[in-house]
Amino acid sequence: MSGHDNERRRPGQVKEVTSLTNPIIKDIRALAQKKYRDREHAFIAEGQKLVIDAFDAGWTIRTLLYAKAGRGNEAVERLAARTVASGGLVLIVSEKVLSTITKRDNPQMVVGVFEQKTAKLETVKPADGDVWVALDRVRDPGNLGTVLRTVDAVGAKGVILVGDCTDPFSFETVRATMGSIFAVPIVRTGEEAFLAWRKGFAGRVVGTHLKGSVDYRAVDYKKGPVLLLMGNEQQGLPDRLAESCDTLVRIPQAGRADSLNLAVATGVMLYEIRREALPLEERADA
Amino acid sequence: MSGHDNERRRPGQVKEVTSLTNPIIKDIRALAQKKYRDREHAFIAEGQKLVIDAFDAGWTIRTLLYAKAGRGNEAVERLAARTVASGGLVLIVSEKVLSTITKRDNPQMVVGVFEQKTAKLETVKPADGDVWVALDRVRDPGNLGTVLRTVDAVGAKGVILVGDCTDPFSFETVRATMGSIFAVPIVRTGEEAFLAWRKGFAGRVVGTHLKGSVDYRAVDYKKGPVLLLMGNEQQGLPDRLAESCDTLVRIPQAGRADSLNLAVATGVMLYEIRREALPLEERADA
Ligand SMILES: [Co+2]
Ligand SMILES: [Co+2]
Repeated sequence: MSGHDNERRRPGQVKEVTSLTNPIIKDIRALAQKKYRDREHAFIAEGQKLVIDAFDAGWTIRTLLYAKAGRGNEAVERLAARTVASGGLVLIVSEKVLSTITKRDNPQMVVGVFEQKTAKLETVKPADGDVWVALDRVRDPGNLGTVLRTVDAVGAKGVILVGDCTDPFSFETVRATMGSIFAVPIVRTGEEAFLAWRKGFAGRVVGTHLKGSVDYRAVDYKKGPVLLLMGNEQQGLPDRLAESCDTLVRIPQAGRADSLNLAVATGVMLYEIRREALPLEERADA
Repeated sequence: MSGHDNERRRPGQVKEVTSLTNPIIKDIRALAQKKYRDREHAFIAEGQKLVIDAFDAGWTIRTLLYAKAGRGNEAVERLAARTVASGGLVLIVSEKVLSTITKRDNPQMVVGVFEQKTAKLETVKPADGDVWVALDRVRDPGNLGTVLRTVDAVGAKGVILVGDCTDPFSFETVRATMGSIFAVPIVRTGEEAFLAWRKGFAGRVVGTHLKGSVDYRAVDYKKGPVLLLMGNEQQGLPDRLAESCDTLVRIPQAGRADSLNLAVATGVMLYEIRREALPLEERADA
């Protein structure tokens, strides 16, 4: 979190804007590009569900945009009031503006511009039973978003992005998370810093590897915290990272496919690691 | 497979084409749209790996396109010879043509136009130990491609697309399969026909459902064939399909996410169903 997250916020305002060339709208449109997201330290979340998730998880809104059709809609007005109360700006816009900002033909009625928020690696101190995922240079925005969603679903603690990864705050990643972007702590770090931090990690570091010698189901994941380290879509884990693992496991494959999709492999691993931790409550008709 | 798959094929030809308005190129460009893929009963596979996979699996090539830079490249020339021998057309084209056809800035050097091929539902007669996946109205091309890839990886037998599904032969789906499109039989059918066929299915039909009463790990998948039925991204299984299942299972979730990504959920299910069938061979250092 950068310093400006802590700036004093005064009550916000409500404006109506229809021009695509309005300077505020132009700034928001620029958030489609990573360069501007980085510079503004902001990103876009589409739809009421995600905006509510963000509010509930304590993220800071800068601007709420909603379509004129949302006027009088109780849920939308409530989000607007919440935005103003927290010092944000509310813009009532044309559907064309929403469509242009989100690059969608049928945009959601509500769009929020939020402060980016990431955690620092040195604050990650996993306790017994905690599971973290580290992704090495993940490239595909959909894969990253889907991994964040799965991490949330299994109750793992967070994701460490190692090296040059796709931006977790891109449209496509945020969409693929289905709101989990607001629930799962994300750390960004370089390989050197990761390897240094890993030395102090008091648990098991498990990597998946095509040459892994251990069946992924044969490992005892219950002792201490677990860090699951996944290589990227093209190359798998590079040697330095593979060597940093306590255990290299392999997910067996029967077919001619030489690998699983990264998000699927991460999902299969996480459900195995959390197998004991995720009991299903008994049901009457079970 | 439609009748024209069986037409007699004469040796093909090799041509050089650089104009985007060449009528053959225009026809191939049109394959970006489902309407033309359906009409031509054809689709595009990008890259040498996929074209080789297609040849090896016995799919019928209509046209092989490669960039001028591929001239003299042994592997590329071999694919061209194979295309001509099987009665297909070889087009040597500019990179601009490839880029336009595939809608990519950096296109693959080789692109193949293949006959579509699907299996008929009445030919699907699973034997003991066989696993099939049925997807109800799957919408996302990436999800469908990833499921096909996973089905291939676990050694399941094929995928039944029920109702109005995304096109398995779209660019995005074919890319996401990483070649498994050529290895995994695909059936397209309507809900009525599926339910009729299901009545004769001599195995266990397992559906995932948020209200499923059985832990997905508590089912014995070893008896007879298994059909895994997955609902779509938005609504899950509709009542009629849910009621057609022998068992409705649930994958436990710890977080605030209300669902897993469809491809991840399918992957987790398939690895559970195939848990006994996919032993990992012992390794010396295991
Ligand atoms: Co900040
Ligand atoms: Co045909």
